[in-house]
Amino acid sequence: MPQLTPTDQTRMVRGAKRANYDTDTVHAIIDAALICHVAQILPGQKPLVTPTAHWRDGSWLYWHGLASARNVAATPAQPVCINICLVDGLVMARSAFHHSVNYRSVTLFGVPETITDPAEKEHQLERFLDRVSPGRWPQLRPITASELKATGLVRLSITEASAKVRNGPPVDDEADSDWPVWAGVMPLQRTWGNPEPDPAGLQPGVEPPLMG
Amino acid sequence: MPQLTPTDQTRMVRGAKRANYDTDTVHAIIDAALICHVAQILPGQKPLVTPTAHWRDGSWLYWHGLASARNVAATPAQPVCINICLVDGLVMARSAFHHSVNYRSVTLFGVPETITDPAEKEHQLERFLDRVSPGRWPQLRPITASELKATGLVRLSITEASAKVRNGPPVDDEADSDWPVWAGVMPLQRTWGNPEPDPAGLQPGVEPPLMG
Ligand SMILES: Cc1cc2nc3c(=O)[nH]c(=O)nc-3n(C[C@H](O)[C@H](O)[C@H](O)COP(=O)(O)OP(=O)(O)OC[C@H]3O[C@@H](n4cnc5c(N)ncnc54)[C@H](O)[C@@H]3O)c2cc1C
Ligand SMILES: Cc1cc2nc3c(=O)[nH]c(=O)nc-3n(C[C@H](O)[C@H](O)[C@H](O)COP(=O)(O)OP(=O)(O)OC[C@H]3O[C@@H](n4cnc5c(N)ncnc54)[C@H](O)[C@@H]3O)c2cc1C
Ligand code: HEM
Ligand code: HEM
Repeated sequence: MPQLTPTDQTRMVRGAKRANYDTDTVHAIIDAALICHVAQILPGQKPLVTPTAHWRDGSWLYWHGLASARNVAATPAQPVCINICLVDGLVMARSAFHHSVNYRSVTLFGVPETITDPAEKEHQLERFLDRVSPGRWPQLRPITASELKATGLVRLSITEASAKVRNGPPVDDEADSDWPVWAGVMPLQRTWGNPEPDPAGLQPGVEPPLMG
Repeated sequence: MPQLTPTDQTRMVRGAKRANYDTDTVHAIIDAALICHVAQILPGQKPLVTPTAHWRDGSWLYWHGLASARNVAATPAQPVCINICLVDGLVMARSAFHHSVNYRSVTLFGVPETITDPAEKEHQLERFLDRVSPGRWPQLRPITASELKATGLVRLSITEASAKVRNGPPVDDEADSDWPVWAGVMPLQRTWGNPEPDPAGLQPGVEPPLMG
């Protein structure tokens, strides 16, 4: 399996047995999540973190927003750190100390690039929508030039990145193995609820979207 | 309702109609989420963002970890920015441009404090566990002095903070109101799956935990 090369920034120090640099694992975690957290440094040495929807094309992570939004406008030429994580369950141990979370997590470092070419912007926004709801794009009122202009689009190469994954049952101290309390994993699931049609009214015969 | 006072850092510029500074709203969003993202600035002007479990006591946000973990060890005396967000659904509009996410989100700024008093540390870890699983703490193998020592605990005052909330149906352009495509909200729900007992074996009669 192709591997990312750990760097001084991505080499895991704490919990190194949970480190994973497989490209496929990193990509799969990115694809399973809808949102990421983009951290950047503002003037005056102030940290900022912004939740943002993301998508992937090959080895690039993309995000979009108002062209003036700070995680879109201010990032090019400035380093960012991004985390994407999924919470899979709570790990209930026999001691408080060994409680944990089952998770899949990716952290990325780098300097984002701005995409300005309108055709490439439109192509990527179509990919974004297709990831959220496959086949929906051609059904929509077509995008306009001024909408495209208002939208900022940036991408970061998925190169300096690491995955950290915890799964499986609790790891208790041996001396606690017959402590009389329930131990195991409480899985967390994310599911779609019932579609809520726009109360403003829909045209007859339209069907709820397929979700990706 | 008591309000937080917006500062230069927390005054919303983009999407200001979604801003909310009610203390109760901010606290409720923090309590509804299990994890936050802590952003900080590392030596050499590098941003770092770390996913971390959190809990609240009054107007303080707490998190814990290995005493040497960077978001625990390095934060005191250094500013952090923290975001906590919940994704409530996908907003499916009649144009690509008006697609969005329904969410509840809180962003906090400040300089964390380290808690060193062992009794206060133990009290807060009990509160953390109680928030995850009410009533479980007294059933567990009691915490030891060396476990307490290995654990770093920090807190941030919930003072310089803002909530941003989007809910409700899509907001389409009037000209698109009878475009023939389904529009509305696809709600996302988080639910507990079936408890997965530790395959190492449990004592007879123990019951799966109550989850908070
Ligand atoms: C789940 C989720 C997904 C999102 N996806 C996208 C996306 O794909 N594209 C996009 O453009 N935006 C997205 N947003 C909104 C995004 O988080 C920012 O609000 C937006 O990028 C504007 O940021 P800004 O720093 O330029 O705003 P400004 O208005 O300049 O921010 C000023 C202050 O307002 C407050 N504030 C801003 N944003 C938030 C927030 N999210 N929560 C709490 N307080 C806040 C903070 O105190 C901040 O310092 C998403 C938000 C959430 C919660
Ligand atoms: C949902 C969730 C909840 C968590 N809750 C807690 C908690 O409550 N307390 C706690 O101590 N830890 C928690 N963690 C783990 C936490 O994110 C860090 O891994 C831990 O704090 C060590 O960070 P560090 O920077 O000191 O590690 P280091 O080992 O110094 O980090 C070195 C490098 O390893 C990689 N790395 C480290 N952490 C991650 C990660 N999470 N994902 C991907 N790559 C990573 C990065 O490239 C990083 O730069 C949680 C993780 C997740 C996903
Ligand atoms: C499934 C597809 C999409 C999703 C889930 C999505 C999600 C979001 C979210 C959550 C925001 C933040 C709004 C807020 O601050 O509350 C946003 C902003 C924005 N999006 Fe999208 N978007 C999608 C598609 C698009 C497309 C196709 C375009 C361009 C044609 C676009 C252009 C913009 C712009 C300009 C903003 C900033 C304006 C604002 O803050 O309201 N989006 N998007
Ligand atoms: C419901 C309660 C708890 C949860 C959900 C929880 C969750 C976590 C998580 C997710 C980690 C990160 C592990 C990793 O890197 O994969 C962690 C680390 C840690 N926790 Fe907890 N914890 C809980 C209670 C406690 C308590 C009560 C203590 C102390 C008595 C404690 C001490 C520690 C320590 C020392 C670490 C760092 C060691 C490590 O990385 O494995 N935790 N915790």
